[in-house]
Amino acid sequence: MAAASGARRLRGPDELEIVAFERGHFTSYSACGIPYWVGGDVDGPDELVARTPEQHRERGIALRMRTEVTELDLERQRVRARDLESGEESWTGYDKLVLATGARPLRPALPGIDAPGVHGVQTLDDGRELLDALAAAEGRRAVVVGAGYIGVEMAEALLKRGYEVTVLDRGEQPMSTLDPDMGRLVREAMDGLGITTVGGAEVTRILTGDDGRVRAVATTEEEYPADVVVLGLGVAPETSLARAAGLPLGEYGGLLTDLSMRVRGREDVWAGGDCVEVLDLVSGRERHIALGTHANKHGQVIGANVAGGYGTFPGVVGTAVSKVCSLEIARTGLREKDARAAGLRFVTATVEATSRAGYYPGAAPMTVKVLAERRTGRLLGAQIVGREGAAKRVDIAAVALTAGMTVEQLVALDLGYAPPFSPVWDPVQVAARKAVSAVRAAGG
Amino acid sequence: MAAASGARRLRGPDELEIVAFERGHFTSYSACGIPYWVGGDVDGPDELVARTPEQHRERGIALRMRTEVTELDLERQRVRARDLESGEESWTGYDKLVLATGARPLRPALPGIDAPGVHGVQTLDDGRELLDALAAAEGRRAVVVGAGYIGVEMAEALLKRGYEVTVLDRGEQPMSTLDPDMGRLVREAMDGLGITTVGGAEVTRILTGDDGRVRAVATTEEEYPADVVVLGLGVAPETSLARAAGLPLGEYGGLLTDLSMRVRGREDVWAGGDCVEVLDLVSGRERHIALGTHANKHGQVIGANVAGGYGTFPGVVGTAVSKVCSLEIARTGLREKDARAAGLRFVTATVEATSRAGYYPGAAPMTVKVLAERRTGRLLGAQIVGREGAAKRVDIAAVALTAGMTVEQLVALDLGYAPPFSPVWDPVQVAARKAVSAVRAAGG
Repeated sequence: MAAASGARRLRGPDELEIVAFERGHFTSYSACGIPYWVGGDVDGPDELVARTPEQHRERGIALRMRTEVTELDLERQRVRARDLESGEESWTGYDKLVLATGARPLRPALPGIDAPGVHGVQTLDDGRELLDALAAAEGRRAVVVGAGYIGVEMAEALLKRGYEVTVLDRGEQPMSTLDPDMGRLVREAMDGLGITTVGGAEVTRILTGDDGRVRAVATTEEEYPADVVVLGLGVAPETSLARAAGLPLGEYGGLLTDLSMRVRGREDVWAGGDCVEVLDLVSGRERHIALGTHANKHGQVIGANVAGGYGTFPGVVGTAVSKVCSLEIARTGLREKDARAAGLRFVTATVEATSRAGYYPGAAPMTVKVLAERRTGRLLGAQIVGREGAAKRVDIAAVALTAGMTVEQLVALDLGYAPPFSPVWDPVQVAARKAVSAVRAAGG
Repeated sequence: MAAASGARRLRGPDELEIVAFERGHFTSYSACGIPYWVGGDVDGPDELVARTPEQHRERGIALRMRTEVTELDLERQRVRARDLESGEESWTGYDKLVLATGARPLRPALPGIDAPGVHGVQTLDDGRELLDALAAAEGRRAVVVGAGYIGVEMAEALLKRGYEVTVLDRGEQPMSTLDPDMGRLVREAMDGLGITTVGGAEVTRILTGDDGRVRAVATTEEEYPADVVVLGLGVAPETSLARAAGLPLGEYGGLLTDLSMRVRGREDVWAGGDCVEVLDLVSGRERHIALGTHANKHGQVIGANVAGGYGTFPGVVGTAVSKVCSLEIARTGLREKDARAAGLRFVTATVEATSRAGYYPGAAPMTVKVLAERRTGRLLGAQIVGREGAAKRVDIAAVALTAGMTVEQLVALDLGYAPPFSPVWDPVQVAARKAVSAVRAAGG
């Protein structure tokens, strides 16, 4: 819908006809907000909707809700769609096609996975179902499977709803988007919050009671009783239509586009959002990152290009921020294993610092880790785990990464300093300073 | 002392003798913390001292406190110093000389300016004297002269101490480091806090009572009753010794150095901190900026260089953050008048946005203004006025400025996004996006 709106801003209804298909009940909503709705911080679902179907229609977009596209006919420039209410199918022609089919939550084929009480949290419909289930549940034990962003955010949400929360994760540490040493800090903080975290947990089945509802989650080691189970196992690009139509997909199953977000090898097809792979500017490789901020940028770029304007999406550096209660978690760039996989040699530096001048009230501790390339000292990545004021500091590293700065350049940056906002050296610079020494010590 | 400590880290006492002279009672303290000490947020003065004279001496630095250097003899490589307790003078030779004489507060030659009850806030001694005066004062009316960083921070401090605060400033708006349209937002917020701000105020004299103490501040227009007066008129480089010795000074009276912080034209003299001018990387001109974070970086660079290592200070982009109670204020790069003075043509874009996703609790409004060069779209500056989460966002622009990014590149940046931390588009990017349109609309 960002692409549709962007195109409409440039070309009025007389110049450009825009038809949009949506199989769900909602448009333009913040999926990222669902955990906060479930946790009770946000009223939903209306609060999470940036623009309703009616608002889109008022702007001259022919929006067909509850209508699923079932086939792309690229040769004849048309799509087949089914009205999910009536079951009727029809073909609609196009001059330019935009694919924004999003991602689908990973849902392993385990016994019991479809039992009542097992919930995903991908759509507003999912959120509503989960909230209904929480209201109806008799016990207060929740198991979250997966300790990535959605997993830890849902752990917080369920904790706030008064649940005893257990988070099962395959990895040794939660937040595998961080290096394990930083993930360990997240685990310790989660334990401190009263969330039980179980690492190295291989879920084998969902156990159900006589009523058919979930009663426990079984791993190879143990059974974890559960009145409700939330799946937070990440997502994969939803590209079955594109695959069937022979469009180019990457290593992670996402559509491959050029810098204008046009699908590679096609003149008349664009794609954006969670269904595409994006260029990682640090590793030079494609990645799949499902994140609303990228999707929104893609939409804007596509909207401009299909309307005869111009825009590009140069790529990402892999920035992400999250929180579990008061714990803030941030990362950008490459982890150690990414850097190794990219053929890079690097040093790391980890420091503890505070969000404000040490003497200023509310100064909160944080741990900052940076990776820098050997010899050149080029910044490769940064990770931060801390309290208030920690997460958004990662933006400093994100911009520096994009600019290809060295850690020495990072140390010299002129960042905002005043006692209520930062120590004399910003924590990111303290880490960079240590990395400068490490680069020097590592020699050529 | 940062230079001395840095040099000592590289070279032990057997390799390098380090003598330091300090005319005051304290070493290595945070002058930026004084307003928060006065306001009662911070216990002082010990909290503000990062390292005491004893700690420096333990590290092998021959520190002579309460000893004022009165003359530099560059030809014979020696300095003359006077012990302020005994009055004794003596010469000390050097191979390498580091000047870190700081800045002195501007104190206009007005009648009554030296009356009891008129206070500067430059040193810890000043802070102590002011606190003593506040404790002894009978009335509760404070006048702050000057509405720059120190002025607005002291207004907050005095408000917290229960004073009725009036801030007099020559400019039409407070915070002349911002453009007037952004300064107006600061004025409105200060008025909302109950601080009386008077713009266009030309102070003509300090009026005293029968006891010789301050009783009011007179401007060309009016008299403002005052039980205590705080001067926040900014500072000038303290370079009288350097000037007498014939060292090169810039337009603002600060020492001029090369990138290694060595005084220009000298082989054996370095200078750093508030007594030097620094290169503004955006305008390409020297400026004087008294800020602890720069001073500290200078010290580290100088310490490395005098000890036979290597370091440079490439320059600044003019980043500064501050607050008045819950109002956060930030700026980086050029104001409109700086850009004009630098011969640049530019567009501006100002937006209102929120610190978090609009639906997330605690989302606070902020106003962001950016300046971008016409035609190239290069970012020239950014200013932010808002509530919690506003100020440190200026770092995004500071890094982008340093990297010479365009506003279009800023829009494409991969910044940390999650509902508790940012809207889908970071406020700085929302402003940049508007600037992109303005650049396009302005044409060549």
